[in-house]
Amino acid sequence: MSQPPDQPDPYARVVHRFATAGKLAAARMMLNWDAQTNMPRGGAWARGEQMAALTEVSAELIGGDGVDDELSEAEELAARLEPDERADLKEMRRTWVHAAAVPKALQAAKARMSQELQAIWTRAKPENDFKSFAAPFDELLKVQREIAAAKAEALGTSPYGALMDEYDPGVGERLVDPIFAELAQALPPLIAEVLERQAGWPDPIPYPPSPIARQTELSHRLAIAVGHDPEQFRIDAAPHPFSVPHSPGDVRFTTRYDEDDVRFSIMATLHEAGHAMYEANLPRAFAFRPGGMARGMSVHESQSLSLEMMAGRSREFLEHLAPLMAEVLGGDPEPYSARNVLNATRRLDDDFIRVNADELSYPLHVILRYRIEKALLSGDLKVADLPGVWDDMFEKMFGRRPPSLAKGCLQDIHWAAGYIGYFPNYAMGALLAAQLFERANAEDPAIRPALARGDFGPYFTWARSRVHARASLVGFDQLVTEATGQPLSADAFMRHVRRRYLEEPAP
Amino acid sequence: MSQPPDQPDPYARVVHRFATAGKLAAARMMLNWDAQTNMPRGGAWARGEQMAALTEVSAELIGGDGVDDELSEAEELAARLEPDERADLKEMRRTWVHAAAVPKALQAAKARMSQELQAIWTRAKPENDFKSFAAPFDELLKVQREIAAAKAEALGTSPYGALMDEYDPGVGERLVDPIFAELAQALPPLIAEVLERQAGWPDPIPYPPSPIARQTELSHRLAIAVGHDPEQFRIDAAPHPFSVPHSPGDVRFTTRYDEDDVRFSIMATLHEAGHAMYEANLPRAFAFRPGGMARGMSVHESQSLSLEMMAGRSREFLEHLAPLMAEVLGGDPEPYSARNVLNATRRLDDDFIRVNADELSYPLHVILRYRIEKALLSGDLKVADLPGVWDDMFEKMFGRRPPSLAKGCLQDIHWAAGYIGYFPNYAMGALLAAQLFERANAEDPAIRPALARGDFGPYFTWARSRVHARASLVGFDQLVTEATGQPLSADAFMRHVRRRYLEEPAP
Repeated sequence: MSQPPDQPDPYARVVHRFATAGKLAAARMMLNWDAQTNMPRGGAWARGEQMAALTEVSAELIGGDGVDDELSEAEELAARLEPDERADLKEMRRTWVHAAAVPKALQAAKARMSQELQAIWTRAKPENDFKSFAAPFDELLKVQREIAAAKAEALGTSPYGALMDEYDPGVGERLVDPIFAELAQALPPLIAEVLERQAGWPDPIPYPPSPIARQTELSHRLAIAVGHDPEQFRIDAAPHPFSVPHSPGDVRFTTRYDEDDVRFSIMATLHEAGHAMYEANLPRAFAFRPGGMARGMSVHESQSLSLEMMAGRSREFLEHLAPLMAEVLGGDPEPYSARNVLNATRRLDDDFIRVNADELSYPLHVILRYRIEKALLSGDLKVADLPGVWDDMFEKMFGRRPPSLAKGCLQDIHWAAGYIGYFPNYAMGALLAAQLFERANAEDPAIRPALARGDFGPYFTWARSRVHARASLVGFDQLVTEATGQPLSADAFMRHVRRRYLEEPAP
Repeated sequence: MSQPPDQPDPYARVVHRFATAGKLAAARMMLNWDAQTNMPRGGAWARGEQMAALTEVSAELIGGDGVDDELSEAEELAARLEPDERADLKEMRRTWVHAAAVPKALQAAKARMSQELQAIWTRAKPENDFKSFAAPFDELLKVQREIAAAKAEALGTSPYGALMDEYDPGVGERLVDPIFAELAQALPPLIAEVLERQAGWPDPIPYPPSPIARQTELSHRLAIAVGHDPEQFRIDAAPHPFSVPHSPGDVRFTTRYDEDDVRFSIMATLHEAGHAMYEANLPRAFAFRPGGMARGMSVHESQSLSLEMMAGRSREFLEHLAPLMAEVLGGDPEPYSARNVLNATRRLDDDFIRVNADELSYPLHVILRYRIEKALLSGDLKVADLPGVWDDMFEKMFGRRPPSLAKGCLQDIHWAAGYIGYFPNYAMGALLAAQLFERANAEDPAIRPALARGDFGPYFTWARSRVHARASLVGFDQLVTEATGQPLSADAFMRHVRRRYLEEPAP
């Protein structure tokens, strides 16, 4: 299948094979973007068929018969390759291990079952109907266990660790467990302290409703400020914000517009613009190849959160954002005073929803899911017991009990969609964002003053060479250590939230 | 590559293989739509890589090692298949013959050279620069000759006929040659007669400029009138109007808006809406499979021209369109009187450009290209002599000489894009449109009165079962004969243009 004409060199042959798979993956991502933004409703069936075909053909290119031998041939000649090429080859092998470890029929079963379960979840969530969700979720978990066992054997990890490795190589339980234990201890008392401090603040003035057209204008202005090239990106509206990987020179992301609350679009735009900047800066020479892709989900999330949380919620940037909101959104300027924008942005939330959570609570939401999904995968937690266990753990962490399943264990689509082992990166990414941003500011004192002018250039200049350009050509630990001087820990994050929420002057 | 899990049946195996290729082709078409409508300029390189990968993988699925044997196994069991399945299998074999006949390296060379030549053409055309076009076109022709020879051997046709067969099976030189000879004789004196008749008419009042937003509204209203389901189509603007095949339930087409001349968008919308209606009505049970695709380019063009030329320029519909234009476009209503719209629409043109040509001149433009490209492929006509020969032939046919290459032999992108053997369908489609429309009106007298209400439903109800639903499950001759009672000829077309241009009362 993969051998291109006139390409007898074993390394060139596997490069062609894996790059072809990468291009098909890119096509699939673009069709998914289209499905979320442009597609007529009637197109769902045909699009599903097209995307399934792309998945099947890509999987066969990567994990089919003969690929193991092709990789071995190339690996035998690895000594004569450049270091980056060797790293690329190593990533091909890793990709192959994941694809080849699991029998086709099991992959197909998971794809089919998760497709069905997402439809069930979509109905069950607003109706708080756990009963119709439970049985098919239990069936999907059985398949997930088989897949995890097969990958664990191939990778030499725990079953849960094998699932994590697919999304986030190098960010395994050994790294996550102690960090999550530390955060689970440290964050609740810190949250209590911050809430007590904020109790004395004046109530923020709510932002008035803003027409979508003005929010769209603001989102475009922000994307340009972040440094996206108008000829190389586009931003559109979609129900769930996301960014599109694997299309160098054509970086797309979506945001979500809520007329009643402009904060959603601003924060989603900054978040996705950060993901998109990582994709935009990946090395073109390794485009579509495993070594040329983003290092993993934690690093990806660190780039969205560097922008949304670290730079985007810095006092410097908020003081720039406030008059920009007043200018673009129009109407009464009072809610857009720097003081009110800071006050509104700094407030901790008292809700139950992960995606709306503040910076301090967010890791706890993730830790809750991490512990529960590990127990679900191992079988220690029965599906029938999930709602009660979730609510108990939530109450213990946050001091309040979810009023419904839609605000409890049915709030996220991930489990229905077959994502187990994915949640940790949301929190690990936040820690890495803090560690990178701290180091960047230490090395370049121009970063914060630039943010006060709405200019993210200096930060991305720093991150580009240290994170983006390295793609998957180095491992997670090496990337983090070389960029920040030490392995990933919660230290910088804890320093950051203490400084921002306890030491910064009140608005 | 192609064997799906649990699919040991040889027929099911080839169905899966060819349907997978069809889904990849559909993905490619959708990415092309995106490139023309949404893509940031910076995306050209990545999109080219993605589309080339899809082409390569599809070609390998259809023409790779082992496919011949797989098809033979299925063919041995053909007796136990349903007739439609046998027809589908026959189309798979035809698709395979085209894919397998040509060595990969030759296909790749053609793809690369035509990609380059299109870029050269884009620069050369406005500058009337034949010199920079000639040498690479000559190189491309050499490759085309090798491809045509290889396919001719596999198909048992002439080299030119083999190229035609790829686009339009069943519409070979044996059908085209006598029909084109007849038209080349009959049309010039008819055109002269019509021009003489029109010389006595009052000058049409030019349509005033119309804002794009109003033209967009009109295009949407027309698409709905044609019968497109708002949940199953979309219409967008693109520089060159086209429609997107192979995505049932998601039929997209584009139109072109020229503020100064609303006629372009109206006619392009009707034209593409006709193509799209064919795609929308193809049988879902054979979706993505060779037998489930449109029969060929002449039948496809017959559906666009049934709508644009036959129904869309009928007196009945124009009398409905005129007040609709006045309502949607606004401004001075005088140019939108039924009388003026009829007068403007009936006028023959005196230009040099195929795509703008009137109904009577159009086949002559195609015949010119047909004769020239056959001579270019055979080598009887040297590339260096092309401009002079084109201008001489044009002058002989139309009585006027092209003032520039942009209005002469460089006007179309087809040759630069590697399309040889494609042009005939534009004229054959016009003849078939007339033959189908005549028969439809004879069988259902409600068609014309419905057009006077802007309702295309009765015509498409007729065409749906007789053309659309048959897909490629019958051959061209059978389809035409069963739909109209006789094989394709120029008779109905000649009756139609005489009636419309000589017998209809003057506006």
